[in-house]
Amino acid sequence: MKFACDKNSLSEGVNTAIRGVSSRTTLPILQGIKLTALKDFVKLSGTDLDIGIECEIPATIEQEGEVVVPAKIFSELVRKLPEGEVSIKTNSENIVDITCESINFTISGSDAVEFPEIPEVSRENSFRLTQNPLKDMIRKTIFCIAQEQTRPILTGVLFEVFQNEIKAVALDGFRMAVYSYTSEEKFFEEESEKYSIVIPGKTLEEIYRILKDEDSEIDIYHTSNQVLFQIENTKVISRLLEGNYINYNAVLPKDHKTQVRVKKEDLMESIERASLIAESKNNLVKFEIGDKFITVSSNSEKGKMVEKIEVVVKGMFLEIAFNSRYLLESLRAIDEEEIELHFINSINPLIIRPIGSKDYLYMILPVKLN
Amino acid sequence: MKFACDKNSLSEGVNTAIRGVSSRTTLPILQGIKLTALKDFVKLSGTDLDIGIECEIPATIEQEGEVVVPAKIFSELVRKLPEGEVSIKTNSENIVDITCESINFTISGSDAVEFPEIPEVSRENSFRLTQNPLKDMIRKTIFCIAQEQTRPILTGVLFEVFQNEIKAVALDGFRMAVYSYTSEEKFFEEESEKYSIVIPGKTLEEIYRILKDEDSEIDIYHTSNQVLFQIENTKVISRLLEGNYINYNAVLPKDHKTQVRVKKEDLMESIERASLIAESKNNLVKFEIGDKFITVSSNSEKGKMVEKIEVVVKGMFLEIAFNSRYLLESLRAIDEEEIELHFINSINPLIIRPIGSKDYLYMILPVKLN
Repeated sequence: MKFACDKNSLSEGVNTAIRGVSSRTTLPILQGIKLTALKDFVKLSGTDLDIGIECEIPATIEQEGEVVVPAKIFSELVRKLPEGEVSIKTNSENIVDITCESINFTISGSDAVEFPEIPEVSRENSFRLTQNPLKDMIRKTIFCIAQEQTRPILTGVLFEVFQNEIKAVALDGFRMAVYSYTSEEKFFEEESEKYSIVIPGKTLEEIYRILKDEDSEIDIYHTSNQVLFQIENTKVISRLLEGNYINYNAVLPKDHKTQVRVKKEDLMESIERASLIAESKNNLVKFEIGDKFITVSSNSEKGKMVEKIEVVVKGMFLEIAFNSRYLLESLRAIDEEEIELHFINSINPLIIRPIGSKDYLYMILPVKLN
Repeated sequence: MKFACDKNSLSEGVNTAIRGVSSRTTLPILQGIKLTALKDFVKLSGTDLDIGIECEIPATIEQEGEVVVPAKIFSELVRKLPEGEVSIKTNSENIVDITCESINFTISGSDAVEFPEIPEVSRENSFRLTQNPLKDMIRKTIFCIAQEQTRPILTGVLFEVFQNEIKAVALDGFRMAVYSYTSEEKFFEEESEKYSIVIPGKTLEEIYRILKDEDSEIDIYHTSNQVLFQIENTKVISRLLEGNYINYNAVLPKDHKTQVRVKKEDLMESIERASLIAESKNNLVKFEIGDKFITVSSNSEKGKMVEKIEVVVKGMFLEIAFNSRYLLESLRAIDEEEIELHFINSINPLIIRPIGSKDYLYMILPVKLN
């Protein structure tokens, strides 16, 4: 194998492919990135067997071939090279020789046949959207996925894809995020289709890091158990979570008795203050909803905190308590200035909606007060 | 005790005083900050018994008094308060009540009599300099102090203060930094005096963080075993390291046989590359000094690295090796673009001098090559 390419392209490719590499693996070959020099590009591949990432960069190929390089040291040394052209070649013992200006590195690679094949995903079912809404969709739902493996399907985000709407849903039994993205442009052509896939949280985290703030398009291909994101010159291949997702519509309250309109920052900062005092075990923060105020309070062996926030209230007086972490994570994901809180009573879930956007909402279960 | 003050002043005062508080202490009272309301200011004090930090902020005192508040939670809640006036009062049970706008915190304080007295330092011996040179002096020497306690005196920086010159010296047995700051303004008045004090590294780290990039003056008072830095409204009191410091002048080589002039960035980046490959145990990097080049190289089970850097050489050919960490730490502290390296042979120390500044130099012992 022998090729030359631009240092910055190589560095970007390595930084992308290394996202697929597991830092903790018992299989030494999985600590590597596979370089494949072919025609007029080099493909860099990393996988931890759950996720595979492949990135193609333009290169001048003098001799096609492939090799696996140790990911960590290779990425470090590429990053530390000066800008300009980098030449890479291997010999029959998989010794990798990297040259840039008057700098020469020699490292030991491994035979590429040992590297696991990243599966092909059939291109039959697919939908297409732009990078920015996908980024938003991930950011505004992912923190609600279950952290524990007791119900594996909940460790992913449900994507329900209709021709002109994509719904992303995450829930962990204590709270839920529902995001709806609609577009006049169709996400796919077939009129009667509807796709439902549950993408593992870890995959979405990596996708989120690879996505740029751009309007360029992403193609998403999927089968019953696999998904492929084609993001410009990068492919991310992941398994899907299998099983039936919860009927989230059924758990969304249809009505409310008390409605509060409040500035997001005011409420968020107050809950942050209250959570300084709240017990670290359950982060309990109490709301008392009165005539024109919410009184936010907390107390523990650390002390007490009380704060009155001016709000607009419609409906009945209410006392209700929450895990402040759940409230804060939702509020931090909201970009709008004002929000509406919908309550039924002190044991039914709270719905948080940003004012000025129908795109998303959060549902949070209260904590029972003694 | 009862007073009102500005939130930002309070926050700044707390952030300064908390630098004196040890996070790990078996004495619970030392996890606190003492507030002393007196006349027209509040003094905030923190100490770990080695260092004491006192910071005064303007306040409207309604009732003088003192209390010790738990440092961590107090600093967090002050930081989270909105801008504006904060009122603080205590009752006879040392319950501390903090009010700002419609926000009220109540936390338990402790009786201030339990708080250790931060010692007074006699104002007899003193010198004065501006913040910026002191910052520079610390930054360019502190990384050379000994990390181990085998010779406690070496865990501090020696300050030799003459009427128009301050020398700061740090060494750990493998390398040394010597910084000389001269000024036409006298550091003190007494003509025949010379002060020699060794300030613990930890104290200087805290001082460094408290110093701003400013031309305002600092007064430094000291006795045989204590030092007091008066930095605007802040006092830092620390013990000094006792004993005789090494005669550093005696170990500085007076001559050299090979002299290399090189761009600092070029050499630094090359050593950074070499250290990626070097064994993590000893970080060994080799220099071969030829006619117009330095060849920097390293090798280990990770691979090999070789790079030729164009330089200007006067003197003899030389092969010499170093711990790359020592080289890099010195090079990173140098602000000048070009440096000069002075060698005698492969077993005598290297001297690094920035070109264009006579203020400082580094000395680094080589590692014996097999």
